[in-house]
Amino acid sequence: MNLILLAPEQALSETLYQLNARQQEHITKVLKKKHGDTLRVGLVDGLIGDGVLDTEHWQVSLGQLTIAPPKALPMALVLALPRPNMLKRTLMNITAMGVKTVHLLNSAKVEKSYWQSPVLTEASIHEYLIEGLEQARDTVLPTVYQHTRFRPFVEDVLPPLLENRLGLVAHPYQAQACPVDLDQASILAIGPEGGWNEFEMEKWTAAGMQSVHLGDRILKVETAVPVLLSRLYPAK
Amino acid sequence: MNLILLAPEQALSETLYQLNARQQEHITKVLKKKHGDTLRVGLVDGLIGDGVLDTEHWQVSLGQLTIAPPKALPMALVLALPRPNMLKRTLMNITAMGVKTVHLLNSAKVEKSYWQSPVLTEASIHEYLIEGLEQARDTVLPTVYQHTRFRPFVEDVLPPLLENRLGLVAHPYQAQACPVDLDQASILAIGPEGGWNEFEMEKWTAAGMQSVHLGDRILKVETAVPVLLSRLYPAK
Repeated sequence: MNLILLAPEQALSETLYQLNARQQEHITKVLKKKHGDTLRVGLVDGLIGDGVLDTEHWQVSLGQLTIAPPKALPMALVLALPRPNMLKRTLMNITAMGVKTVHLLNSAKVEKSYWQSPVLTEASIHEYLIEGLEQARDTVLPTVYQHTRFRPFVEDVLPPLLENRLGLVAHPYQAQACPVDLDQASILAIGPEGGWNEFEMEKWTAAGMQSVHLGDRILKVETAVPVLLSRLYPAK
Repeated sequence: MNLILLAPEQALSETLYQLNARQQEHITKVLKKKHGDTLRVGLVDGLIGDGVLDTEHWQVSLGQLTIAPPKALPMALVLALPRPNMLKRTLMNITAMGVKTVHLLNSAKVEKSYWQSPVLTEASIHEYLIEGLEQARDTVLPTVYQHTRFRPFVEDVLPPLLENRLGLVAHPYQAQACPVDLDQASILAIGPEGGWNEFEMEKWTAAGMQSVHLGDRILKVETAVPVLLSRLYPAK
């Protein structure tokens, strides 16, 4: 937690915010801050600055917030639904890296049970996104969509999203090396363990997505995602 | 497990290997292979090819192994010892990415208790390295060194390692953006949560290491490592 992120429902007035239990614990145990100390705070979807801690009422009183959140990545990520534990970490990590649009998608090799996971509830996803923002000192919440059917997504949802964007689908075979340092917006689709099947690859290609590989090493989703993002958009 | 990796102690003859319990379970439950089926196998520190499965004796009979393992990254990674769970995943992930030399190092902000973790035993580290190799279809085991004292490492061990290599230390402040697509060998040092302290940064700089940053987002070690490796050496 490199930033105390304050949500609208924590506001007591325009400049006074109530800290929640998780924040109180972090401020006490990790940051070891005391009454009257300064904290780095940010408003959800807003600016960043300093606040003064009141440990009597567990409130923080905001100074001028003048720092803009770090730049977002100009891309949307389509992710075949990973298994729940992998999903948690992936949501945190991609949020920390600056992804603002995530489409979780079904695929032939996604286990049906993954869609039943409590990780997919709105409250749970929100929690991982918040953790990712707090890690990276960002304030802008990503939007996460869930698509339980592959075909309607690729045929109906994807085409308008692809306008003026480069479409890339990660696939180890019949693919070119993934581009490095893109100067345009993109949509990147990453498959499940075991990859997209033949039908799915045909659909991606028909929709105008270009298949790209990452060399001859097969990586887990949790590794492949930061590798791909860092390659497409190396931070300056 | 994208490769059944066979160790010398599993050899019954030059071409016949005994499968261990973990491999038997994976072959049955995940790969769903049957007696007489072909498996992708590799010898530790050797070549890759096909073998035929015998489920009666849980042995595999090797054909010609002719495929070389994927290329290694021309770099050594120095990692301030992360907390045990993070270390497990990081060892697997960097092994999968092709790192062959890892120095685990103490630092002021590494908790003392981390050095007592059972994850650091030789057998346990070996297990994570093997998992990383199996993931990436590699056979060449990395070497992992443990340095419980910072100063002797930087003053005595590092200088000869740095000959003919670019030395980089990840640090968010007073640093240049990390280079992209290096064409030379390197040593990359990544700090603990909370970063290297001032004394440590002075020592790195005095040893000839150049400080590099990853932009204004603060990433966890498990994300920062693949991001940095993918930036320095994008797979072709």
